[in-house]
This record gives sequence, structure tokens and C-alpha cells, in this order.
Amino acid sequence: MSKKIGYYRANTNIALIKYWGKRNKELFLPMTSSLSLTLDAFYTDTKVTVDSNLSQDYFTLDGIAQSYSDTQKVSKFVDLFRHLAGSQEHVYIESVNHVPTAAGLASSASAFSALACALNQAFNLNLDQRTLSTLARQGSGSASRSLFGGFVEWHKGEGDNSDSSYAEQIADADWDIAMLVIVINDQKKKISSRVGMEHTIQTSPFFALWPQEVEKDLALIKQAIKDKDFKTLGEVTEHNAMKMHATTIAANPSLTYWAPASITALQAVQSLREDLGFECYATMDAGPNVKVLCRKSEIDALSKQLLTHFKPEQLIKAFPGEAPRPLPID
Amino acid sequence: MSKKIGYYRANTNIALIKYWGKRNKELFLPMTSSLSLTLDAFYTDTKVTVDSNLSQDYFTLDGIAQSYSDTQKVSKFVDLFRHLAGSQEHVYIESVNHVPTAAGLASSASAFSALACALNQAFNLNLDQRTLSTLARQGSGSASRSLFGGFVEWHKGEGDNSDSSYAEQIADADWDIAMLVIVINDQKKKISSRVGMEHTIQTSPFFALWPQEVEKDLALIKQAIKDKDFKTLGEVTEHNAMKMHATTIAANPSLTYWAPASITALQAVQSLREDLGFECYATMDAGPNVKVLCRKSEIDALSKQLLTHFKPEQLIKAFPGEAPRPLPID
Repeated sequence: MSKKIGYYRANTNIALIKYWGKRNKELFLPMTSSLSLTLDAFYTDTKVTVDSNLSQDYFTLDGIAQSYSDTQKVSKFVDLFRHLAGSQEHVYIESVNHVPTAAGLASSASAFSALACALNQAFNLNLDQRTLSTLARQGSGSASRSLFGGFVEWHKGEGDNSDSSYAEQIADADWDIAMLVIVINDQKKKISSRVGMEHTIQTSPFFALWPQEVEKDLALIKQAIKDKDFKTLGEVTEHNAMKMHATTIAANPSLTYWAPASITALQAVQSLREDLGFECYATMDAGPNVKVLCRKSEIDALSKQLLTHFKPEQLIKAFPGEAPRPLPID
Repeated sequence: MSKKIGYYRANTNIALIKYWGKRNKELFLPMTSSLSLTLDAFYTDTKVTVDSNLSQDYFTLDGIAQSYSDTQKVSKFVDLFRHLAGSQEHVYIESVNHVPTAAGLASSASAFSALACALNQAFNLNLDQRTLSTLARQGSGSASRSLFGGFVEWHKGEGDNSDSSYAEQIADADWDIAMLVIVINDQKKKISSRVGMEHTIQTSPFFALWPQEVEKDLALIKQAIKDKDFKTLGEVTEHNAMKMHATTIAANPSLTYWAPASITALQAVQSLREDLGFECYATMDAGPNVKVLCRKSEIDALSKQLLTHFKPEQLIKAFPGEAPRPLPID
């Protein structure tokens, strides 16, 4: 009758070069590599208790017991670690998302990253970060990148080889960089990134060119990160995101994650850059929020400018974040 | 001391398969063929008076004398007809646009079509519609299509052969078809279609696939028109427009003609179709307005539904229009 505990905090990340398209749906193997910036403002704290008394897995999110089907999905993920540990024990998972209410920001990246770290600790597996990233990936693709801080590349890997598709830090982001998240709520029914990805791959003629665009953008952005060339970093980030969204708009029927206020935000970013000289560039994921890659030194002034269009609570400042870290166990 | 007069009314047209990209800028030769529906709601009346007493050309638009540079552009167009007539006489041009105020709808299509017809009459050239379409094209590409009523195809033609790039009616549109124009005003500075086209061709990776997409869409829509298959007509129209806009969004830097309210309109059209069963499909040109291809029999009900989002004066009903016609000369 033993209890083993793992307790970790993991940050979320925002892709600068997007992950858009799987080549293997079971293993979450992506069609392309991708690159992200880990952010400190949004994170998940997850405690895993391996308890030989339990007859099944339990999963609470923000203190609320989750449904059978949600728990099953998580159990399947836990199986990967149980298998490696040669264990049949069940777990009690307590997960708390620290994402501003209604921000609608994807928490699966930080969630599966924190869970992977906590399971590694609780089952005493001593897996390295790279291996953990291949496991986190199988919970949610982008979670692989949250195993590291700063700028992170997730390598697409080869064939159906799961081990080859891992993430790694390519540079810390310890320079004048920040991200301002403009939170936009849309009344439209939500289309998950999984469904939008699939629809785009199957019906958008422009998706055929997406993998080669990512290759080009990755080469450019990695050089920009090396050179600390913010202008190129921003330009490539914005262009890559807009190309991703163009693939969905060209799907049949057309699909867009943009809300009316997303256009307001995109236009504001462009105007602040072109007319007022702010170093700011937009990126968007499978939702209406607009994330603005900007200078840490300009983020307060930029935020003030955006108050013309948005309420203070819609503007969230985020800074480069670190790799997951263990939390104290009482 | 003779006065010869030409006086014509020409309708505008909305492309269902878009003209997006020139292969020859001097001659307005397009990269692809295109296909449009001529509309009755928007038209231009143009009177041309050939007057041997004039020492230069004069041009009034909506009763207002136009600037030297605008008059020069029109004079260059008049030269095409003077040359054919072997004349050196100057003209007095009075043009009146019948487009609802602030609708921001392109009037160059109806303008150059009406002007071509009036010049043909005034110079007594007796050119046929097909030849006139090749001349109107050199004023504004889409004007070539306004020489005809109903569904009109503008053939891209071959090489630098101007005569090969003409328009012709492929079918009247005498069935249950209409177009509801949602007028959206944007505060953003306007980017002309000429500039947007050029920027897209030069910087959008997805433009490479545009010509072949147009080929496919043209074949599909022509069959749908033949079969009076409204569903396919609408689906191809919407998909073609969204692909055109996706090419601009993927340009570098990204460019969009969409205003926030354009998204509201696009979402409303999709929801009215999917949730309420209206047969309606969206198309957009190089501006924020959304044009809804719909059933004539449903246009009143559709218009009523859109009052949730738009003011009555933003909704303009249009029906298939005819070829240009001569107006009585007092």
C-alpha cells in the first residue's frame, strides 16, 4: 500500500512556425516540423498520485471530477507510462489550468506536458526531456514543445518512428521579446483544430504547398533567432500564420477561425507597425485570438495603443517561459 | 461643324469566377479566363458628343468636371476609337453612375462598357459586341464582361493577341437567381485591386496554384449553368472567391480586403445556409462588401434575416441584367 507522487508545472507555448497537419493520427506524427516560444503567463499544475488502492484512474480539472470519456482519454495517455514502468497501478490526477478565464487559449500543450512530467516523477521513470516530449506529443501534438523553455523546435521525424519526432530547445529567448495576447471571444460555434486541420488537408488546394512553405520559413526563422534579428523573426512568424489561415480559407467549404474582431486586431497590429513604428507582428492559431509578437521594452506602450479597440482585460502580457519545473510536495 | 452623339447605359457585373492577375499590363490581358453575372441594380449612363469645335476632350462624372489626369486616362481610351474612325476630333463625355451612394462598388466595369458603346455610336463605327469587349477591356479588365447580359465568360485569349481576349454571353440568367449585396464600409485605407493583384502575384506562394484552380472552377460552373444546378453554381462561386482572398492573405506582408463586418456577413451567410436551409453563397471582390448569390424567390426572406446584423440601407437587391442599351438622344 504505497503512494507515489509527481507534481509539475508546465508552461504553454505559441507556435511561430505552425504545426498544421498530421501524417500519422494515432501517434500524432506531424507533416512538418514546427517552432514555438514558451510563455510564462499560461501554465498548468498537475499532481499525479500513484495509489495501489485505486481500482481505476481519477481525473480532476480545476477541482472538478471529469467525465468518464475525458478520463478515458487521459487514462490511455497514462498507459504509456504504466507500460514503461511495468506497473498496473491506477492514478489520481489533479490538474489546475492557470489561464485567464475565458481566454480560450489552448491549454492542452501545458496540460499534457505537465502530466508527462508528473507521471515520469510518480512512476520514477527518470526519462529525459527529449523522450518525455515524444510521449507528451501523443497526448497533444503541441505539448511536445512545452517540455522546454525559450525557442523550441519540434522535429517532424521520419516515417512512423515515434522516437524521431521529438522537441528540443534551440535557443533561450533571453532578449527583448514578449507576446501580447489579444483575447477575442467569438459567438461562432467552435471548430477544433483537429477537425479544421483534417478538413483543410482534404479540401484545400493550397495545402499542397504548405509543407514546403514551412521548410523555407523554418530555415529563415532559425537564422533570425541565431542573429537575434527581431524584424525577420516577426515577419516570418506573421507570414507563416497567415499562410496557415489562408489554407483554411481556401478549404471547401471555406473555413475561418477569424472573428470580426480578429480583423480589427490584425489591422491594428499592421497599422501600429507601419504608421507608428512599433516592432509588432501578429500570429493566430485555430481560434479567434490574436497574439502579438513584440518587444518586451515596447509592450506597455503597445498595450496602451490597443486600448482604442480592446478592453484592458482582453490584453494579456506574456514573456518567454521556462521548461517544466517540479512543485513542492507537502 | 458637326456634332455626333452616342448615348448608352451599361450594367455592372459581379465575377463568379474571379479575374485576378494580368499577364500583360498594357493590354489588360488576364492570366485566366473569368465568368460573371451582369446585374441590373448598378449601371452607368454615358453620353459622348463628338464635336469638331473642341480643342481637347472633356469628361464629367455625375455632373462634375474631372481632373486633368482622370481626363487623360479616358482620352487614352477614346484614342482607341478615334484611331479606328480615322478621326482627330475631340469629345465631350458626360457619365453618370447609378450606384447607391457609398456602396463602394466598382463602377469601372459599367463605366468603360457604357463609354465603349457610346463611342462606337458617336464615331459611327458599327463594331460588334465582341470587338467592343476587347476595347472595353483596355479601359478596365472587368468592363469586357459588361458588354453582355446574363452569364458572361471573358476568355483569356492567347499570347499578346488582344483580339483573342474577348467576352461573350454563355447563357441568359433567366431563372431563379439573384444577388444580395451587403454594403460594408471600412475605415481602412483602400488598396486598389491593381495594387493588391500585383502584390499577391509577386509575394504569395499560393498564387502559383490560382490559374489551375480557375480552370477547374470554370469547367464546373459552366456545367452548373448549363444544368441550372444552383447548388453547384453557388458552391463553386464561393470557393473560387475564398481561394482568391486566400492568395492575398498569404501574400507577404499579408493583405486582406476583409473588414470586421465582412466576417460577420460571411458567417451569417454560412449559418443561414447550414442552419436555416437558405440557398445562399458568398462572393467578395477587392473590397469589404459581401455579395450573396441567392434565389430570387428567397431574396426577401434572406434580406429580412440579415437585418439582425445589418441596416436596411446596407442591403441592396440585384437581379440578372441585360447587355448595354442605347438611351434616347433628345
